[in-house]
Amino acid sequence: MTEEHELGRLDAWWRAANYLSVGQIYLRDNPLLRRPLEPEDIKPRLLGHWGTTPGLNLVWTHLHRLIRERDVDAILLAGPGHGGPAAVANAWLEGTYSEVYRHIGRDEAGMRRLFAQFSAPGGVPSHVAPETPGSIHEGGELGYVLSHAYGAVLDNPDLVAVAVVGDGEFETGPLAASWHADKFLDPVADGAVLPVLHLNGYKIANPTVPARIPREELLALLRGYGHEALTVEGDDPLDVHRQLLAAMDAAHDRIREIQAAARDHGDVVRRPWPMILLVTPKGWTGPREVDGVPVEGTWRAHQVPLAGTRENPAHRAQLEEWLRSYRPEELFDADGRPVPELLDLAPVGDRRTSANPHANGGLLRRPLDLPRFSTAAVEVTAPGASTHEPTRVLGNYLAEVIRRNPDIFRLFGPDETASNRLDAVYEVTDKVFAGEIREVDEHLAPHGRVMEILSEHTCQGWLEGYLLTGRHGLFSCYEAFIHLVDSMLNQHAKWLKTTRTLDWRPPISSLNYLLTSHVWRQDHNGFSHQDPGFIDHVVNKKAEVVRVYLPPDANTLLATMEHCLASSHYVNVVVAGKQPSYDWLDPAAADLHCARGLGIWDWASSGGEDPDVVLACAGDVPTLEALAAVSLLREHLPEVGVRFVNVVDLMRLQDEREHPHGLGDAAFDAVFTTDRPIVFAYHGYPWLIHRLTYRRTNHHNLHVRGYLEEGTTTTPFDMVMMNDLDRYHLVMDVIDRVPGLGSRAAEVRQLMEDSRRRARAWTREHGEDLPEVRDWSWPAGGDR
Amino acid sequence: MTEEHELGRLDAWWRAANYLSVGQIYLRDNPLLRRPLEPEDIKPRLLGHWGTTPGLNLVWTHLHRLIRERDVDAILLAGPGHGGPAAVANAWLEGTYSEVYRHIGRDEAGMRRLFAQFSAPGGVPSHVAPETPGSIHEGGELGYVLSHAYGAVLDNPDLVAVAVVGDGEFETGPLAASWHADKFLDPVADGAVLPVLHLNGYKIANPTVPARIPREELLALLRGYGHEALTVEGDDPLDVHRQLLAAMDAAHDRIREIQAAARDHGDVVRRPWPMILLVTPKGWTGPREVDGVPVEGTWRAHQVPLAGTRENPAHRAQLEEWLRSYRPEELFDADGRPVPELLDLAPVGDRRTSANPHANGGLLRRPLDLPRFSTAAVEVTAPGASTHEPTRVLGNYLAEVIRRNPDIFRLFGPDETASNRLDAVYEVTDKVFAGEIREVDEHLAPHGRVMEILSEHTCQGWLEGYLLTGRHGLFSCYEAFIHLVDSMLNQHAKWLKTTRTLDWRPPISSLNYLLTSHVWRQDHNGFSHQDPGFIDHVVNKKAEVVRVYLPPDANTLLATMEHCLASSHYVNVVVAGKQPSYDWLDPAAADLHCARGLGIWDWASSGGEDPDVVLACAGDVPTLEALAAVSLLREHLPEVGVRFVNVVDLMRLQDEREHPHGLGDAAFDAVFTTDRPIVFAYHGYPWLIHRLTYRRTNHHNLHVRGYLEEGTTTTPFDMVMMNDLDRYHLVMDVIDRVPGLGSRAAEVRQLMEDSRRRARAWTREHGEDLPEVRDWSWPAGGDR
Repeated sequence: MTEEHELGRLDAWWRAANYLSVGQIYLRDNPLLRRPLEPEDIKPRLLGHWGTTPGLNLVWTHLHRLIRERDVDAILLAGPGHGGPAAVANAWLEGTYSEVYRHIGRDEAGMRRLFAQFSAPGGVPSHVAPETPGSIHEGGELGYVLSHAYGAVLDNPDLVAVAVVGDGEFETGPLAASWHADKFLDPVADGAVLPVLHLNGYKIANPTVPARIPREELLALLRGYGHEALTVEGDDPLDVHRQLLAAMDAAHDRIREIQAAARDHGDVVRRPWPMILLVTPKGWTGPREVDGVPVEGTWRAHQVPLAGTRENPAHRAQLEEWLRSYRPEELFDADGRPVPELLDLAPVGDRRTSANPHANGGLLRRPLDLPRFSTAAVEVTAPGASTHEPTRVLGNYLAEVIRRNPDIFRLFGPDETASNRLDAVYEVTDKVFAGEIREVDEHLAPHGRVMEILSEHTCQGWLEGYLLTGRHGLFSCYEAFIHLVDSMLNQHAKWLKTTRTLDWRPPISSLNYLLTSHVWRQDHNGFSHQDPGFIDHVVNKKAEVVRVYLPPDANTLLATMEHCLASSHYVNVVVAGKQPSYDWLDPAAADLHCARGLGIWDWASSGGEDPDVVLACAGDVPTLEALAAVSLLREHLPEVGVRFVNVVDLMRLQDEREHPHGLGDAAFDAVFTTDRPIVFAYHGYPWLIHRLTYRRTNHHNLHVRGYLEEGTTTTPFDMVMMNDLDRYHLVMDVIDRVPGLGSRAAEVRQLMEDSRRRARAWTREHGEDLPEVRDWSWPAGGDR
Repeated sequence: MTEEHELGRLDAWWRAANYLSVGQIYLRDNPLLRRPLEPEDIKPRLLGHWGTTPGLNLVWTHLHRLIRERDVDAILLAGPGHGGPAAVANAWLEGTYSEVYRHIGRDEAGMRRLFAQFSAPGGVPSHVAPETPGSIHEGGELGYVLSHAYGAVLDNPDLVAVAVVGDGEFETGPLAASWHADKFLDPVADGAVLPVLHLNGYKIANPTVPARIPREELLALLRGYGHEALTVEGDDPLDVHRQLLAAMDAAHDRIREIQAAARDHGDVVRRPWPMILLVTPKGWTGPREVDGVPVEGTWRAHQVPLAGTRENPAHRAQLEEWLRSYRPEELFDADGRPVPELLDLAPVGDRRTSANPHANGGLLRRPLDLPRFSTAAVEVTAPGASTHEPTRVLGNYLAEVIRRNPDIFRLFGPDETASNRLDAVYEVTDKVFAGEIREVDEHLAPHGRVMEILSEHTCQGWLEGYLLTGRHGLFSCYEAFIHLVDSMLNQHAKWLKTTRTLDWRPPISSLNYLLTSHVWRQDHNGFSHQDPGFIDHVVNKKAEVVRVYLPPDANTLLATMEHCLASSHYVNVVVAGKQPSYDWLDPAAADLHCARGLGIWDWASSGGEDPDVVLACAGDVPTLEALAAVSLLREHLPEVGVRFVNVVDLMRLQDEREHPHGLGDAAFDAVFTTDRPIVFAYHGYPWLIHRLTYRRTNHHNLHVRGYLEEGTTTTPFDMVMMNDLDRYHLVMDVIDRVPGLGSRAAEVRQLMEDSRRRARAWTREHGEDLPEVRDWSWPAGGDR
């Protein structure tokens, strides 16, 4: 094939994709322009974005060619916002769209529907949504295209993820951080990311920063990120096609060279990976001017360049001219099908970017080979007879998970894996690092299962990309700082919710969080590290995709984590401590308790079927305080019947109409009673418990203690006292709520006040918690 | 002074600061080592971080010299986490600490207390906390030091903010984005930021990325960020002092050159600003090895390098040797005061970094000169008789605020000011841009009041820095994406809460958010742009510092914003629409309604003192639906007495014990009744209304409609229907809850079901909202 012919073929595809994109934005009928455009052919309301589309179509066009010519396994992630029309156009041209959505055929009728549905109510969004075949990246919230791409290629040595970075997105923090993901890529076992920085110059209403700094400054920046940039620049289509074709080939050659050096010759020294700097006008090939004002190549091309096409004949004529400039008659046959010459360019089968199974990870997902948690469980001879660091115990379990699943599970964290005491995993794997490794370093290697960078955004993006391509993972993070990715969690939860309704997207693995170094144990970090609000944030998401667990000890943490790692299509938030704390349940009891999600602990209860008060708790520190309160009550007010309830699965509190894990009202009432006071010691902000239970029969008797946003650098025991969650306060709460206790109770109440004051003074003076002197083994439950 | 003498003087200060830092980490007694260290001299629990401290002390030392020698107005922001001991040591040496905290004198007794309080319960945190004089940057959560520094120097032409960037923090997204803040700095009217990237090589448990890439790659990156880096590198103190002294002078010279060129010669072309790349060992001058393992210069120096100093005599001896290596006897006199030679180095008065008023912005804050909102208000002849775009109306008001306050107010936004329809401000000011400006650009200039970068993190950081140094501002943002800064909001709210207890820190201006392009109006953006959860996030913060407003129309938005801009020391969240919507209240009514925070709208009510139902609403779209429901009820069930309540100030719903704005129970009951059903149409997630009201008498009668996380690309009216917030549903809710309505009500209910179905079909087909045909002017309230 001559170069001219090849470029013509590329240009034809590009024109076809552009035509289909413009059609989606404007037309509801007359898709092939068989007659002049009439007002009724135009959508009544024009919603869409043209600006970024021609650039995306260009990259897709050239990627198809590369894939077809070299049999490359590649996906494309569209970073720029509002890339929807381009993604849909290419998927339709490739035929995938009609395979997934059978009512949208690859013919004139299908084209008409394709156009009509875009940005119509309940139709196709302007962003590259979950509904778009071939996408693992929504594009509505900017900043994650590179971290998603890097997550996708981990452990996929043959995969190339082409990540188009918009020059608007380029300004965001998460994107800026994620350029450094190349320092965590193993050229042997991982695939490659090919970033395409698309400099079209403008955002919504402003020029972009990278387009308005000297070019040598931008190139220095990209070199600093570890990339060798191949520049493709211009506004003459054939010239740009020629440049881009060469750049794609060169980039692919370079990727394979680096990989071959590493794979065949063991040369894993990090080298600059190629990238493409693509400089073309915003809204390229669209209207150059509208009403005498420049549009193409300016921010005015961002959205809909011709706004008055229904009522304004001049605008309509300009639109028709624009559409005809793509010469649709050469691109589509009489039935509206793409002509064969066009289709020759497209890859076939799974090689189509819109059909690549890596972009529909549920198809590839294999369940983890999970050991039973009991293999790592700690022996518990009696409640509180021993202590362990729960996350350290979990580390042993995770080490075995990693050993059994050497290529489909990774652990992510912002430099906190060891701090979070999961370091047992280093007995079986290393932390990945492709930067310089020195003798003093420990557990650093070009390949491993642990990904650590001090960017929660990059960790989250990696994990999302890894999950969306069919693998498994866990993100461990300080509880307070997981808020950094609140917004990313939103988007991922929305993705999960939407894809539950798409039967062609099988479920992916759950996004698992282990939040530790939590609010109650920030002895030296103080107030800035004390925030349990991520739970509140998560429970706002659709109930069917979120789960929150607060295991109270080591064995319940193990049982919870086994469950989470086996699950799919959820967001699982597990909050657990890393400090030594009591073991309450043996493996069998932990298994049962976690399966139930919440339950009465008979051994800590008295009063049998007819307690005077329900003392409930959720979270490790609240559980300790509540049990200590039981102990104080047994000592000082043994006549008070206390039902002790521990909650592991927070969603059990909600009712079954609100959450799939929710308890029915009868079951809830059986545990919490319909008329006894409930004193609830909770890990986080107390009102969440009210929000989850406000419909329950006994809600008016519910009294919750939790974190009141009072904190500082201090001991754990001082922290619970500052927030009125301490054992003495809980006893006082019981006394205040159980009727008819008499004068003895008033004395005990005073004793608690005094003990509290003394305890506070002691812990503040000594800088340590009070030594626990309790025997946690009480006679079996039910007695008084 | 000879160079040798000068370097010796610098080294003495550095040794003193290091000595005081180590003392804080370890000692509770024997602060001057008058006798050998005994176990009881050592704190019982060692909590603190040494690793970053010597580097910070070094920068402070050299900054003191520069300030003193050249009379520079400078502050220092310590980016690295756990920089607390260094900040405190320098403030104590400068004398400021003892001025602010009189019980911590600058003598032996004071030094003893200074040491004892650090990381002790309720004492001084390991981070540079609000309690630290001279700080506007907490440092517990990493990533914001540059944006804070840039915010501080805006409109402060003589100020230099030295921003120490840790090489761990360097990996975060917010920090990475904020390097580009230099493209928004006006060399004429703004001051300068001098970044010091401190490469000590390690984080908690890993090497840092910038320390392990080739140096030329790092320098290229910094050049790409727009900086000329002056490298200072070594581990020989005198040599490093020599280099750093020269680098500080050169950097300051260069800053003044750039400023002089711009100020004296109008040369505002952006040039590379200087920065310093400081490469010194982590934990420098600390123990080189502990128990045979290398510590200095590794990640092991991060926290407390000698852990066993109380029980292990060898460790204790090593600590004593370490402390004595600073030669305290040369640094402090017999009373523990710094020797005069040392004090000669320190700046005096307000020039001390720990006493610079810019770091205590409340001292400098002038109130805004605010026009009354009524000057921009829209005329309202009758409720619903006209429509306006509320944010566009606000734009006019903000233009006047800017006109009156040309140097103490700025508007921040991620490229959304125009999209959010605040563009009237461009009649009086421009968007700041220091990159290349082209002819096609509009309202871009080197100086202006509007700051736009596509990084919510940078916008928030700028604004925080601007407020913390005593100025005023407003951040306008799409509602969904403000979640990007959830975590920054946490930290700022914690700062505000803590500083309320510090009488030496007067209040700063409130952090004002305008959230628009909200959940109900994402016609073409769809699900990813639909999230009203920031309100939920904010109300978890301490009640005394957070306020949330949902003005239902243009005039209430104006009244609310005037109130917020005049306020201090709060976080104000204002949610308002930008689309054309009805005007309900005239200026006088808006003023009164906003002053009350919530109230009965008599003109929309019937049933007088004894209504059958309370129909409440908060937010512009819910208000429209609730009023339309009133209209339907009047038409079809005129016998139902409806009390119409609108809520602007969400915190009024909470009770007065929970929030300062909270209504007393009697006042609440007077509005919401004690026994009538309440149907509440709310802008966000419905459970928030339950959480705010669960203690109210009539809570069991409360039924809330809101956003149920159901969304897509569709019309506003389809959105409210998808979430059961529409007028028909509200009427059905009323019918279901008001007892004794009889068979007529059943018919109306069916009519509503049918209308709903028809309306949904219509809006989905037409891609538009139903035309409103209602007359909103009803006979005066109270009738039936």
